[in-house]
Amino acid sequence: MNEASLLDRVRIVLTRTSHPGNIGGAARAMKTMGLSRLVLVAPQSFPSDVATARASGAADVLANAEVVDSLEAALRGTVLSAAMTARRRLLALPMQWSHEAVGEIAMHAAQGDVALVFGNETSGLSNEELALCHLPVMIPTAADYSSLNLASAVQILCYEMRLAMARPAAITAVPARLASFDEVEGFFGHLESAMTRSGFHDPDNPRRLMARVRRLFGRVRLEKEEVGILRGILSALSRKVD
Amino acid sequence: MNEASLLDRVRIVLTRTSHPGNIGGAARAMKTMGLSRLVLVAPQSFPSDVATARASGAADVLANAEVVDSLEAALRGTVLSAAMTARRRLLALPMQWSHEAVGEIAMHAAQGDVALVFGNETSGLSNEELALCHLPVMIPTAADYSSLNLASAVQILCYEMRLAMARPAAITAVPARLASFDEVEGFFGHLESAMTRSGFHDPDNPRRLMARVRRLFGRVRLEKEEVGILRGILSALSRKVD
Repeated sequence: MNEASLLDRVRIVLTRTSHPGNIGGAARAMKTMGLSRLVLVAPQSFPSDVATARASGAADVLANAEVVDSLEAALRGTVLSAAMTARRRLLALPMQWSHEAVGEIAMHAAQGDVALVFGNETSGLSNEELALCHLPVMIPTAADYSSLNLASAVQILCYEMRLAMARPAAITAVPARLASFDEVEGFFGHLESAMTRSGFHDPDNPRRLMARVRRLFGRVRLEKEEVGILRGILSALSRKVD
Repeated sequence: MNEASLLDRVRIVLTRTSHPGNIGGAARAMKTMGLSRLVLVAPQSFPSDVATARASGAADVLANAEVVDSLEAALRGTVLSAAMTARRRLLALPMQWSHEAVGEIAMHAAQGDVALVFGNETSGLSNEELALCHLPVMIPTAADYSSLNLASAVQILCYEMRLAMARPAAITAVPARLASFDEVEGFFGHLESAMTRSGFHDPDNPRRLMARVRRLFGRVRLEKEEVGILRGILSALSRKVD
């Protein structure tokens, strides 16, 4: 698989963007680096003349952008999703720096679609959005001023993706067949209902149980076969319970 | 010398910028990466409310920006200058990719000020401007669309500088004491006048002689002592001629 088709597997996902100018700037940033797949989760204003003006020669990226109403919908079919975060938070998963993370992201693109997820300009990604992603990624910034413009953050990540995919390792190294976002979500749904029916989990008093389960399986990067095994176990146990 | 003080040695030089919004965007991009020294060569419109608005929390970088009327003035006192170029041209000097060039630039910052020079949004750097710089640098872009926004290009280079200066090699490796821009220009002036007085060089029929001389010495990165030796030779020879 060559570099160009790997870049076609990278989705840039912008969630709840406030300023259409940033959507246009992101489209231009993507196209300069050879990326084309833009997914907008509940943008405040789109389509927009402001976005088109800022996109300059990248109007085609805007025209082909997919607009969806949830991050779940944006991540459907991906095998890996990276969540940009501007500050150190109490994260469930180990954080990686942008220049370190791209190698892993590029490697996963050999298997299927990957997503780079950028939050709202002011509030970033919500904890719920972060929990849907595998890999929290930070761009290194000055300690006293970390306020990267959204389109600038997209520019840096697209640039790093382009560099990473030009490295031979990205194209040759193929990890085990990972489960897709949908498959893992299917497993979580299965698990939650099994836990509920068994009485172990009370949805009215959740004690962050599902968040802890997500954290655990987010760290291991489930393979396709493993999801099959886990769901097999769940089905077998559920039959006993019922 | 630590990372922060190395970043203080990096000048971002924007020549003949058309859109004040890009000046503001560049200031913001710089500050997020810990850079603060902005030099504007003959900007079309500055100061400007548009620039201030785009700078967001980086108004201090704009307030401290130096405005000069020539690239020579902007480069005074630097030991290395890198010229951003968006396309492959017939260059006098070997081109480096952005991620490769920053290591060398960071290393030179251990010796003195360095400059990253960005041309006009539409026309880029002129050949005369390029000839004043040591190192042509290209940001890798898609073959069919290389139209990076100016502030985005500044963002990428400042990000790369920040990464490069965090690498231990940048701080420990110290190259020989390089001549400053002024010293090298002083030598070129000396050489040109000596060549003219000797009859070898005719300013009315220059045959690109000075351009070739600049190319030669641009490649070798003259050291301070070497400039002294060369000027000594020139002085000795000139006395004979006169």
